[in-house]
Amino acid sequence: MEDAGLRTWVDKMGNVHGRVEGENADAEALLIGSHLDTVVDAGMFDGSLGIISAISALKVMHMTGKMEKLKRPVEVIAFSDEEGVRFQTTFLGSAAIAGALPATTLNISDKRGVTIAEVIKENSLGVSEESLSQLKYDPTSVWRYVEVHIEQGPVLERVGFPLGVVKGIAGQTRLKVTVRGSQGHAGTVPMSMRRDPMAAAAELILVLESLCKNPEEYLTYDGQCSDNSVKSLSSSLVCTVGEISTWPSASNVTYTVDIRAMDDTGREAVIYELSKRMYQICDKRSVSCLIERKHDAGAVICDSELSAQLKSAAYSALKKMEGDIQDEVPTLMSGAGHDAMAMSRLTKVTSLLSLYASRWECYLCDVVEA
Amino acid sequence: MEDAGLRTWVDKMGNVHGRVEGENADAEALLIGSHLDTVVDAGMFDGSLGIISAISALKVMHMTGKMEKLKRPVEVIAFSDEEGVRFQTTFLGSAAIAGALPATTLNISDKRGVTIAEVIKENSLGVSEESLSQLKYDPTSVWRYVEVHIEQGPVLERVGFPLGVVKGIAGQTRLKVTVRGSQGHAGTVPMSMRRDPMAAAAELILVLESLCKNPEEYLTYDGQCSDNSVKSLSSSLVCTVGEISTWPSASNVTYTVDIRAMDDTGREAVIYELSKRMYQICDKRSVSCLIERKHDAGAVICDSELSAQLKSAAYSALKKMEGDIQDEVPTLMSGAGHDAMAMSRLTKVTSLLSLYASRWECYLCDVVEA
Repeated sequence: MEDAGLRTWVDKMGNVHGRVEGENADAEALLIGSHLDTVVDAGMFDGSLGIISAISALKVMHMTGKMEKLKRPVEVIAFSDEEGVRFQTTFLGSAAIAGALPATTLNISDKRGVTIAEVIKENSLGVSEESLSQLKYDPTSVWRYVEVHIEQGPVLERVGFPLGVVKGIAGQTRLKVTVRGSQGHAGTVPMSMRRDPMAAAAELILVLESLCKNPEEYLTYDGQCSDNSVKSLSSSLVCTVGEISTWPSASNVTYTVDIRAMDDTGREAVIYELSKRMYQICDKRSVSCLIERKHDAGAVICDSELSAQLKSAAYSALKKMEGDIQDEVPTLMSGAGHDAMAMSRLTKVTSLLSLYASRWECYLCDVVEA
Repeated sequence: MEDAGLRTWVDKMGNVHGRVEGENADAEALLIGSHLDTVVDAGMFDGSLGIISAISALKVMHMTGKMEKLKRPVEVIAFSDEEGVRFQTTFLGSAAIAGALPATTLNISDKRGVTIAEVIKENSLGVSEESLSQLKYDPTSVWRYVEVHIEQGPVLERVGFPLGVVKGIAGQTRLKVTVRGSQGHAGTVPMSMRRDPMAAAAELILVLESLCKNPEEYLTYDGQCSDNSVKSLSSSLVCTVGEISTWPSASNVTYTVDIRAMDDTGREAVIYELSKRMYQICDKRSVSCLIERKHDAGAVICDSELSAQLKSAAYSALKKMEGDIQDEVPTLMSGAGHDAMAMSRLTKVTSLLSLYASRWECYLCDVVEA
């Protein structure tokens, strides 16, 4: 950041900031950021791409003398902890800046019983329950938040485009499903007398898959939603069964379900319909099913004006580098959560998803200039 | 055993024997037995019922002076290890007596690396690779083997009968199924672009259940087998998915399948048809499936003459105790493996399954006398 000519500091939550004031230090600032931490096997570009590409863009502008002539302040933020690997609480860094982090979060402890507050103190960062609220940015001092992130899915590769503009970040629900049947000897209980939680779980997983692949065949809207919203739901809806286990005994099967969609009402409709069908299957099989709702996050819709600007800037940059571009820059849903999700509590956000990291500074120069 | 007037000894494999010669010590002996060991949650009657009821029956005959007048020797054997809990090798005790235990078995070690041979030496039993073969009974000295065992399924309770005669012990195949798909981010991979091993495994488990519930809808016999054999297969066939795991990564799902049936040809037909359909499903879903055959045991058909004798003896005993009996003593398949499975390598076997343990000595008196 210093090499790019930015004024730098580390805040009390461990976020690293680099800022240039431009020609009007009092104007609302453009924030660009992503996260410093990552998870196992997330790849080398995970959060770092968004930080490095922002710094690179500003460095290029600094070298060409454009940075100092920016119409508004631009601030790059490298958020300290987005993944929540250690404390199971996501967006620690960005939520603090957005003012969306409850003070009680600091008392959450890791597996060894060490709290967030203790770790922060150990690292001489010194945020306390009292000073946490001071980290929050004044919304009137912020213009927009932009985040570049590697695409964590296969869509850009499939459509053959190196980048896409994000229309929104999907809302998410996590369920824990427990199926209770009867434990029996594998050889001695006739098929007709079984209440097998494993076979029941298999049927439940298949109905989830089928519903999420073709929601239009399952959901009946009574006037509230149009055909269009079912179609749009169907294009963004993804459902996944993660961990499955027969622990603590063969009479129980437990698994997790992750449901994401761009449309919050549609996601609720899916959960309602899914639960209904799951209970029907469990009744038919005489097993008992418990569906617990473990986590919910609403979708974030990106600022359409900024997205359009980003799209056109990305298009020009691409054209400049690669010559003739046949198609529009694709507009995607982001199925993964990003710091932009937390930052949407503070300001309007948008995001650019990238297939690979090379030449990112070029796209971003145009974006920052615009 | 001594209290019942039997001559007793412990053999070099840890099997406990109690024998009465009767009036003709040179005649072929009737062997009655079951196992001393058990597994977690198998209940108090597991192997011990077959041992205790045999001793009790002989004790009653001893007290009434009938034991010494038996036409042939009767020997009760309490087998040392049937379950294979420690060494993962079943029928240690009975297989040694049947001459069906390979000498190399003695080198198998438990989780801590202690071998069977070492444990036997520690307990001063002293079997060695050389002396193992001496434990084998001479088939010409044995008349039949009978085993009483608690029913480990719900059939007797359902039909309202306290006991049933076993027509055979089911053959068994264990499969390990590995489904390999693609690991992806739960939010970012569209439903249509997934190669989800979990959903594939769910479909595979359901086709197993469906095939085993209604084999007649899946199996097409080309002259070799009659409709009757499909019907009989359908009455004995049981299929179970036990452990399932997504270890070591979410791109792999692994589970075990246990298939048992009275009819070995039918079981092979089921495995053939099942494998074919499983591979079709995997192809359709573009996941790769590996079906490994981990264990096979042929069915054991009980001696029909002895079974008929046992059935009629059981009927008279029941009638004597409970007055008028409406129905026949039921004939069942045993889905669980028993020492009778190993003993069938030595002599003709049959078995009686019991719902509960009370008054077992009464049934057995009649059986032993017969």
